[in-house]
Amino acid sequence: MDFKESMQAMYAEMVKRYMEQPSENGLYDGQKFSRQSIEHQISPEEIISIHKQILQESGVSGHVINSFDILLEVMMGYGLAYQEHQSLRSKQK
Amino acid sequence: MDFKESMQAMYAEMVKRYMEQPSENGLYDGQKFSRQSIEHQISPEEIISIHKQILQESGVSGHVINSFDILLEVMMGYGLAYQEHQSLRSKQK
Repeated sequence: MDFKESMQAMYAEMVKRYMEQPSENGLYDGQKFSRQSIEHQISPEEIISIHKQILQESGVSGHVINSFDILLEVMMGYGLAYQEHQSLRSKQK
Repeated sequence: MDFKESMQAMYAEMVKRYMEQPSENGLYDGQKFSRQSIEHQISPEEIISIHKQILQESGVSGHVINSFDILLEVMMGYGLAYQEHQSLRSKQK
């Protein structure tokens, strides 16, 4: 299992646990996860996509799932802007 | 109404319309919105926060709403990483 796969499983477990039982620890896990996923160059839209999948598998209604398509489009723009910044920086080095 | 307020209203309208009737045009609106919100330095977690609020107001179940707390924590990390890149770049100018 590479990082992307194990990261998907980690995120799903973290979200499902928090949905059942919200806690400060759960939020802290979210922060730790964020650092790791940025380090491994996971894009923000990949996170949105996994989140959508988790809700879809939990049987959440189609309207809510649809709303994620817009969120995905918006986050793709952010992902791209971030990538451009990174590639500019590496050119400057 | 400043950009942030009108942008919240724009996003809400766009998402609600798409939830009722998904369309290619709706996705295209999402892309345009993304460019504008990046230009106006709206952070990714602000988008997530508005999205959560829209679903909350639409009466979506508490479990789903809870899941957005984790998504928010994760996106805050991305927002921060992006800000750091931007501030590094402006120092280099």
